[in-house]
Amino acid sequence: MSNIVEDFDNYREKMNTRILADNNKIIKRIFNLDTNAFMAGALDVKTKELLGLVASTVLRCDDCVRYHLETCYKEGLTKSEVTEALGIATLVGGTIVIPHLRRAYEFWEALEQQQE
Amino acid sequence: MSNIVEDFDNYREKMNTRILADNNKIIKRIFNLDTNAFMAGALDVKTKELLGLVASTVLRCDDCVRYHLETCYKEGLTKSEVTEALGIATLVGGTIVIPHLRRAYEFWEALEQQQE
Amino acid sequence: MSNIVEDFDNYREKMNTRILADNNKIIKRIFNLDTNAFMAGALDVKTKELLGLVASTVLRCDDCVRYHLETCYKEGLTKSEVTEALGIATLVGGTIVIPHLRRAYEFWEALEQQQE
Amino acid sequence: MSNIVEDFDNYREKMNTRILADNNKIIKRIFNLDTNAFMAGALDVKTKELLGLVASTVLRCDDCVRYHLETCYKEGLTKSEVTEALGIATLVGGTIVIPHLRRAYEFWEALEQQQE
Amino acid sequence: MSNIVEDFDNYREKMNTRILADNNKIIKRIFNLDTNAFMAGALDVKTKELLGLVASTVLRCDDCVRYHLETCYKEGLTKSEVTEALGIATLVGGTIVIPHLRRAYEFWEALEQQQE
Amino acid sequence: MSNIVEDFDNYREKMNTRILADNNKIIKRIFNLDTNAFMAGALDVKTKELLGLVASTVLRCDDCVRYHLETCYKEGLTKSEVTEALGIATLVGGTIVIPHLRRAYEFWEALEQQQE
Repeated sequence: MSNIVEDFDNYREKMNTRILADNNKIIKRIFNLDTNAFMAGALDVKTKELLGLVASTVLRCDDCVRYHLETCYKEGLTKSEVTEALGIATLVGGTIVIPHLRRAYEFWEALEQQQE
Repeated sequence: MSNIVEDFDNYREKMNTRILADNNKIIKRIFNLDTNAFMAGALDVKTKELLGLVASTVLRCDDCVRYHLETCYKEGLTKSEVTEALGIATLVGGTIVIPHLRRAYEFWEALEQQQE
Repeated sequence: MSNIVEDFDNYREKMNTRILADNNKIIKRIFNLDTNAFMAGALDVKTKELLGLVASTVLRCDDCVRYHLETCYKEGLTKSEVTEALGIATLVGGTIVIPHLRRAYEFWEALEQQQE
Repeated sequence: MSNIVEDFDNYREKMNTRILADNNKIIKRIFNLDTNAFMAGALDVKTKELLGLVASTVLRCDDCVRYHLETCYKEGLTKSEVTEALGIATLVGGTIVIPHLRRAYEFWEALEQQQE
Repeated sequence: MSNIVEDFDNYREKMNTRILADNNKIIKRIFNLDTNAFMAGALDVKTKELLGLVASTVLRCDDCVRYHLETCYKEGLTKSEVTEALGIATLVGGTIVIPHLRRAYEFWEALEQQQE
Repeated sequence: MSNIVEDFDNYREKMNTRILADNNKIIKRIFNLDTNAFMAGALDVKTKELLGLVASTVLRCDDCVRYHLETCYKEGLTKSEVTEALGIATLVGGTIVIPHLRRAYEFWEALEQQQE
């Protein structure tokens, strides 16, 4: 099942490379900002990743959720911290979020299995 | 073609089981509320299912649309009642809804074929 | 307090007149479709108004909510029917809907007071 | 200028009281869940309030933003922590968030002035 | 009636100044990108302003619509060009866009009157 | 890789035929409006297609993006014109748009390869 992690990572990397090769200044700067915005500042990296996760979840963007789940996992956030954040996202965003919650749980479990 | 119904049902059931096993109180209560909200009250079940269908369609959530289409089908709503509701959803939500309309029609036809 | 109903009706009518006077074919046809879509068909007018109300609420459009509340009121839907529909909209759309729920309750009460 | 805080609080309290008096079970439970979801758990209250703030901002709900700004302020979060969270919300949600950012800054400054 | 233009411009300028004074790097860069993105490139300024207008309209952000209407007006776009773009936005975004269309027409007329 | 174009076209045509065969008046008229709205008027077809593309992108509808990319391609818009429009959409709609940008670039490249 851990293939959903690899598949996501590979497609993301392949297409990001092509987009950045295209040399569109606005898009390149947005990608650059994206890296900077999640670096430690007044808030630490873990908190920022949870903010990114919740923003992605209420806006119902599966790929963005996957990206932040992966970073949360690498940063050492626990499953209960992550699912508590997802619970808030489901409450604020409504039951319309539930299908994305299913895929988020599946992806998190794939991340856990990949490391075993 | 009726496999799209089974595939949807199986994945939904599998992941709902895992989510509920996780014992996150907020998420469990939201799932519980979801069951209660669609029971007969001042409005009957059929009307409520149509409300759920239209809400899901304008918010463009394919899985939520599939879920309510399946319940509408089981509750005995006719195709013309369901597509009239989908027509309102397309008007209110705009042409951006049309790709979801395609998948909704496909799913409804799969529901009809499954029973044959 | 019933002025919020009059204010809404007057502004809506004034600007609709100006928009239609502008003779933009696409916009005129959309306005026309809007009238047709809520007429009795496979579904009755009351059900359709509730569908319009729920669609407007989950998409968080206060003016659309007000419009459908007013039509629901005129069509004789009861407060408990309307609030049950709003409850489904809040569950599906999430707590982000609550500020719109406050304004919807206020508007409904203004509709009731206006008739006294 | 601090009146925008009082005005918001008063209207919110007045309408919440009326909504809860209406005794709609689904809506009452959602209000109840909303209180529980932001209590300390695997994540502390400050982090949860920032999650609520970011969710509200990307979904562009001014009243929800105001509510979480007020709670953030009461919980002792600093302006730089709050604006860093708002920066992430603006990046994830896009420039469409900027008008809400203006009103968020204005509200935060009103909160600061109110305490003086 | 042209006060709605002045009121919008003044509030926007006042709050933008305060936001930029706050020195949040991410937010400042997003403001900066916003200026660059609408400069002439492969597409001319008029076309880009119409793109900004349609994006703002389907995302139903009144202040963003006002900002782009004002720039469209200054760039010399005609009313029929602007309303044709708004017609596409209403079709793609659905009737939920109509209340924003009312305010857009009102603002455009205020822009025209202001110049007289 | 050009199969993603064929697959999209075939599914779209198959389901549009079934939807139109269903004879739902509201839906048929919306399809009809959709054709008319993108015809030359005060704005030319190329500009209108870019408006449709940007609206689809900020509303994050992959199939709508694909449809307008294909029409942009047929109308002779260049890659730099299209990606400049996509850049504006990403800025206005936020980083949440990026996954759709990846699929848009992939689809555009498939369109280019198909012609070779």
